[in-house]
Amino acid sequence: MLSPGATIGILGGGQLARMLALAGARLGLKSHVFSPVPDDPAFDVCAAHTKADFLDEAALAAFADSVDVVTYEFENVPARTAEVLEAHRPVRPNPKVLALTQDRLIEKQFVRGLGIATADFADVTDADSLARAVAQLGRPSILKTRRFGYDGKGQTQVRDGVDLAQAFASLGGAPCILEGFVPFTKEVSVVAARGVDGAFRAWDVCENVHAHHILATTTAPAAISEKTARDAVEMARVIADAANYVGVIAVEMFVVSDAQGERLVVNEIAPRVHNSGHWTQDGAVTSQFEQHMRAVAGMPLGATRRHGQKVVMRNLIGADADTWAQILAEDGACLHLYGKRESRPGRKMGHVNRVYE
Amino acid sequence: MLSPGATIGILGGGQLARMLALAGARLGLKSHVFSPVPDDPAFDVCAAHTKADFLDEAALAAFADSVDVVTYEFENVPARTAEVLEAHRPVRPNPKVLALTQDRLIEKQFVRGLGIATADFADVTDADSLARAVAQLGRPSILKTRRFGYDGKGQTQVRDGVDLAQAFASLGGAPCILEGFVPFTKEVSVVAARGVDGAFRAWDVCENVHAHHILATTTAPAAISEKTARDAVEMARVIADAANYVGVIAVEMFVVSDAQGERLVVNEIAPRVHNSGHWTQDGAVTSQFEQHMRAVAGMPLGATRRHGQKVVMRNLIGADADTWAQILAEDGACLHLYGKRESRPGRKMGHVNRVYE
Repeated sequence: MLSPGATIGILGGGQLARMLALAGARLGLKSHVFSPVPDDPAFDVCAAHTKADFLDEAALAAFADSVDVVTYEFENVPARTAEVLEAHRPVRPNPKVLALTQDRLIEKQFVRGLGIATADFADVTDADSLARAVAQLGRPSILKTRRFGYDGKGQTQVRDGVDLAQAFASLGGAPCILEGFVPFTKEVSVVAARGVDGAFRAWDVCENVHAHHILATTTAPAAISEKTARDAVEMARVIADAANYVGVIAVEMFVVSDAQGERLVVNEIAPRVHNSGHWTQDGAVTSQFEQHMRAVAGMPLGATRRHGQKVVMRNLIGADADTWAQILAEDGACLHLYGKRESRPGRKMGHVNRVYE
Repeated sequence: MLSPGATIGILGGGQLARMLALAGARLGLKSHVFSPVPDDPAFDVCAAHTKADFLDEAALAAFADSVDVVTYEFENVPARTAEVLEAHRPVRPNPKVLALTQDRLIEKQFVRGLGIATADFADVTDADSLARAVAQLGRPSILKTRRFGYDGKGQTQVRDGVDLAQAFASLGGAPCILEGFVPFTKEVSVVAARGVDGAFRAWDVCENVHAHHILATTTAPAAISEKTARDAVEMARVIADAANYVGVIAVEMFVVSDAQGERLVVNEIAPRVHNSGHWTQDGAVTSQFEQHMRAVAGMPLGATRRHGQKVVMRNLIGADADTWAQILAEDGACLHLYGKRESRPGRKMGHVNRVYE
């Protein structure tokens, strides 16, 4: 177990790294942020930062030597980066998890291998294999690049009339996966943490609403049955245990409701703190950010009880953040801004949490 | 009103500055910390810091020019420091408040002038005036230096048998004030904030227990009558209004209970966030740190409602902080550590908040 005064190395300097550093500071932990991006939001709140490329091995080695443990705020950490760092310091969550979650095909095979439902899927390497996959999974279905997709980028819908060669070409000819249509009624996620000792704590399952492929709001708890909620948490636990995971993990799931009742389909695993866990900052005893820092430092996990009857997190995207003064004047609204220099449409600038008693 | 992205200059780099910087970051505010102390706790969490003497006028000018507004974490800011800074940027709370609170005699005269009770007091400039003061106020009474006293330093009790010349000499011959004995049953404080627009918000009156002259615990709300609580908040409001105050202010008071009921005697004013307000970090909608940053930035004040039935803050002094692992493992305990490199007996290393539902 690290002691207060230890330094946590964080790869990436965006808002997640920023909120990790802030939460760590509360526990007396120092943060050293590594990012190639000038003026990254986390630089303003950390004890040290290194501005260097993720493939700059000398910079990575010096960074690792200056910290006690390394973690990351994003899943697309290059394999070589993780390898260099691991030679110097523990990397948590372990880099095998990165390999898993960077590739939609491997991720789905892993989840299925645990006996957990996912959308039906097929490997797509060219227009011909796409044609076979569509024949198998039907339309509508979704073609996604195996790697580097987020917020709706790197994917295209295969509806009636869509030309398959064109669809495949629109994603740059990259290796893809075709996912069958899931007639879901809700999107939920489980945000949870697993400690070095295998302890597991989940917050309430929460319900997510997206707009333009970007998370708009999260509400905790999700309006699902108690049994579905228990099943969801259990799936996250099985996944975290199987990956020998350490830190906060988010598992996005679809809820399908039919004559048989509610059932869950795992959509995606994020090996990091997650936008759908931001509500925990004001709506739970321990926030996901503090929990992640505790976990990677080998400290005991904190309580995850929710405050209030309901907590709603709303993202402030682009110009939404210009309403900050109204939000500050609103009784009980908890404003979080990321200190980004430039606002752009679609850019996450902050969020607001509202706890309803 | 400043906007998120603005920089708040903070004089002093201790735990109060650290927690101010952390709270400001949540709102997208940057902090620039000015302190002469190497490795000060706030340096680890701020966007910029200047390590220079408080009388280094060139450093002060450069600091002021780099920020949008200046505030401070301690009341003993030299008058000249404030004067230099004010020539460049607004200083909040205004430096007249510093002059007031740096001198126990002037402070007491100010409070009395507002029709608010204080201990009886007399000016002491030498052993002779001390003898006259003791003849007037009786024994026991307390001799305190007018300036630079804190945590029981710069004061001595005048009990039966105490030699007055010796007592005066023990405080270095500095200008003093003799304070009459107050037979109090409790010590309470009002932590409140006043905005640039004159808005005023107080948290629950809280009850403080000291050990060895250092705050040990704060409990909110204080076990006093509703009327006494209302009176206490009203006194703080009158004081803040009279001082044209901007920011968080703490007013320490004694509660005297006798045949006539409860009454309040103001003991001391702190023109800053205060140890007895730390409970608000986990026990109220808006913390004193966020509130102070809002106030000095000219932003609207946040709600001050308490969470739970009762909130208890316990200071971690010296070796108390070595129990951090137990505290982390305790369900619902909220640990705050200040990142100080060195633990010493009597040094404030952190605190823990416990919210009771």
